[in-house]
Amino acid sequence: MLRALMAQLPDKESSFFEWYNEVLEVANVTDKRYPVKGVNVWTPFGFKAVSLMDRLIREKVIPLGYQEVCFPTLIPESELNKEAEHIKGFGEEVYWVTHGGRTELDIKLALRPTSETAMYPIFALWVRSHRDLPLQVFQIVNTFRYETKSTRPLIRVREIHFFEGHTVQLGDAEAESQARADLASFREIAKVLCLPYVMDRRPDWDKFPGAFYSIACDLPVGGNRTLQIGTVHHYSQNFAKPYGISYEDKDGARLVPSQTTYGISERLLGGTIAIHGDQKGLVWPSFVAPTQVVIIPIPGENDPAPLIARAEEVRAELLRTPLRVEIDATEGRPGAKYYAWEMKGVPLRIEIGRRELEEGTLSAVNRLGGRTKLAKGDTAAQVQAALAAYDVALTERARKSFATNVNIARDGPGVVAEKANLVGWCGEQTCAQEVEKRWGLSVLGRLEEAPEALSLGPAPPACIVCSKSGGAWSLAAKAL
Amino acid sequence: MLRALMAQLPDKESSFFEWYNEVLEVANVTDKRYPVKGVNVWTPFGFKAVSLMDRLIREKVIPLGYQEVCFPTLIPESELNKEAEHIKGFGEEVYWVTHGGRTELDIKLALRPTSETAMYPIFALWVRSHRDLPLQVFQIVNTFRYETKSTRPLIRVREIHFFEGHTVQLGDAEAESQARADLASFREIAKVLCLPYVMDRRPDWDKFPGAFYSIACDLPVGGNRTLQIGTVHHYSQNFAKPYGISYEDKDGARLVPSQTTYGISERLLGGTIAIHGDQKGLVWPSFVAPTQVVIIPIPGENDPAPLIARAEEVRAELLRTPLRVEIDATEGRPGAKYYAWEMKGVPLRIEIGRRELEEGTLSAVNRLGGRTKLAKGDTAAQVQAALAAYDVALTERARKSFATNVNIARDGPGVVAEKANLVGWCGEQTCAQEVEKRWGLSVLGRLEEAPEALSLGPAPPACIVCSKSGGAWSLAAKAL
Repeated sequence: MLRALMAQLPDKESSFFEWYNEVLEVANVTDKRYPVKGVNVWTPFGFKAVSLMDRLIREKVIPLGYQEVCFPTLIPESELNKEAEHIKGFGEEVYWVTHGGRTELDIKLALRPTSETAMYPIFALWVRSHRDLPLQVFQIVNTFRYETKSTRPLIRVREIHFFEGHTVQLGDAEAESQARADLASFREIAKVLCLPYVMDRRPDWDKFPGAFYSIACDLPVGGNRTLQIGTVHHYSQNFAKPYGISYEDKDGARLVPSQTTYGISERLLGGTIAIHGDQKGLVWPSFVAPTQVVIIPIPGENDPAPLIARAEEVRAELLRTPLRVEIDATEGRPGAKYYAWEMKGVPLRIEIGRRELEEGTLSAVNRLGGRTKLAKGDTAAQVQAALAAYDVALTERARKSFATNVNIARDGPGVVAEKANLVGWCGEQTCAQEVEKRWGLSVLGRLEEAPEALSLGPAPPACIVCSKSGGAWSLAAKAL
Repeated sequence: MLRALMAQLPDKESSFFEWYNEVLEVANVTDKRYPVKGVNVWTPFGFKAVSLMDRLIREKVIPLGYQEVCFPTLIPESELNKEAEHIKGFGEEVYWVTHGGRTELDIKLALRPTSETAMYPIFALWVRSHRDLPLQVFQIVNTFRYETKSTRPLIRVREIHFFEGHTVQLGDAEAESQARADLASFREIAKVLCLPYVMDRRPDWDKFPGAFYSIACDLPVGGNRTLQIGTVHHYSQNFAKPYGISYEDKDGARLVPSQTTYGISERLLGGTIAIHGDQKGLVWPSFVAPTQVVIIPIPGENDPAPLIARAEEVRAELLRTPLRVEIDATEGRPGAKYYAWEMKGVPLRIEIGRRELEEGTLSAVNRLGGRTKLAKGDTAAQVQAALAAYDVALTERARKSFATNVNIARDGPGVVAEKANLVGWCGEQTCAQEVEKRWGLSVLGRLEEAPEALSLGPAPPACIVCSKSGGAWSLAAKAL
């Protein structure tokens, strides 16, 4: 293992994609040697991380009233085609199952690209009365898109690890409240992952196929690139009508409900790696770190046995908390071990040498280099505190680089083509096209809120193209 | 909800399949109205149960050294075809993806029917040295089989919720030990689910396609029917050779490893429902019960508020344990509520009336009708004890019906065609064919161990067909 880990990573600043591909490979998050293009294998290490991301999502959405379900992967062509915009948006990237054994199927089956068209025929059966509303379900499944663009692990893949929340609401106002609650839960998720982001409303021409509106969370990942890591969509009645979902209200009238969805994919993990990783390798926020603490006995010339015994004692205490802890008592130089565990992104390393053993203390070094001495006594509490402090420092580091990566363009000439930009924009498509032409950037949407990491002025500036006022702060960048 | 639940279930004894279909529908475990044949929707209730089954499996296999992974759903035709027996066994029931959008794919992709052919090309990359062994991974994913037989929820479906463990071992002896360890973990799983079973070794003509040997756990579910709820396969080098898996041993020699697999599907949940359910509905073993305890305040003519307050106090205490608890303080007669929660299979009902409130006690009734009074004091501990006692009673009830359902045929004329039979069998296929001809039963395999619920004699009897001795106790039944 160590041999592979001793590889030097490409420079993240100047060669982001090379760095990204290499760090995933060297740290062994996914294996991209699977013999189907754009389809990767989750290794034990990577799957642990993505499972922890799933746990985080569940912890934040279940309290909102969501219940977990699982709908089929296979969707009949007839159901997929019911909502016109939706199929227009997905038709070209759907995988089709045409045969069972040697038998040609009567009706072609799509592999779900997303599950509206699998769920809503059944929602039409589940929703009868206003008492059945709100209906709030989610599933964590794999979805499939025949991507024609170049693929990239965890960012653009053909089989996607995907959380999708779907709700049915009494009306548009209730759907609006649900969307707000979903966005609030996303803020909490991003906070746990120490991620600064931009929350913006997609322009009409770029919203989810079939949506009334779409709000996305975009992560500036260096250069002018942003990564969409989460979305909330308000569908109004756009799906409920073609799928025949209706309910009886208190007065016996039959009404068409309003709907929302909430989506987060493995991209959130890809973005977390992209933002926090550095020249030494992965850097995990403590919640999703497959291993949170590694304990390394450093015997030097002495007998390692008492140090290993002490390490096991500390691990046993931490496991009860519960924390995810490993001991590295393999042979080898401490330096090489540090290197390997740093590559894996372990948040906290505990070193036990002879002095620590005699004093009953522990030396702790976090993944950002911060050192602490853990005193005799409640080790678990001190480790939890060290991890909390580490997450704060990681957030701070990410915010600083966010503030550097995102340019605040108060007027036209202030736009920097090589960065993500916050610009004034009037909302017109012609001006967005002009931004594309002049700077090679897409207007991804107008801000829903001022990013915490930046201080924007009190009022949005005039449109950087047409100079009209009354527009909004908007994100102009290249979407990955 | 109550209205639907007041339906009378068909008689389980005389109309097993009608009862089974109806109880799944009335209790709302899966929704079979999805517009693709043999493909069902997991409702929130059903998905909770199957997730708890997954949790149980994880708890039992992770201590054996298994690590969780996720391999792709899509398998190129060329990989699927590498092991000749395997593709012969699965070829007719594979779903084929032939198109991405409107583009015909260069190479057809199968939806995994099981994941040997997805994993082993990658195992060939992961396994280099004896130090990489044993490799033990598992995944919990959906698999796909284009079933031509009639489908049935949780028992025979076309999209299957599936646990599959795969290991690579130094040699056949190590693979044998792994298989034994897997079978031991299956025994523990069955114990937690209160299930008596028959563990038997499939005859060569009925083993898993490509296996060296297959050991199955068969569950007699009434009449002469059995349900295969778990399997362990020893592959020896049958897959390692065609997939080019090899390793360097300590002396530098290149060797071909041996392999095993371990499979459990949603059938385990279907079998649990089939065995324990009764005329009042589902009966869950406490581990997989989506709700373990329901608290019902019974105000009668009195003010319900203090009873509800007390119910909430009890719930809060139980949730800390943690237990899965609900309060039913809806309007309606207690009897109708009991009926509804019994249909859902909740193991324990706690009733709080005026007397309980005054005394500080609680009345508890388990799903089998057993009553206990919970004294003032540590309610959580008393509830845990009541659930443990309930599981014991449930195991006892299942064992009794197992002993009734399984006929011990010590000689030919003693076979009962309408039951599952344990018979003496010499091991010859001609005799198995004769069993099929005479009694309409398949010889599913020779016993690996005497079922706990039965007392078999010290030595197996002579073959019921050819009367040769030296054979083994074997299971003859109709596999569902």
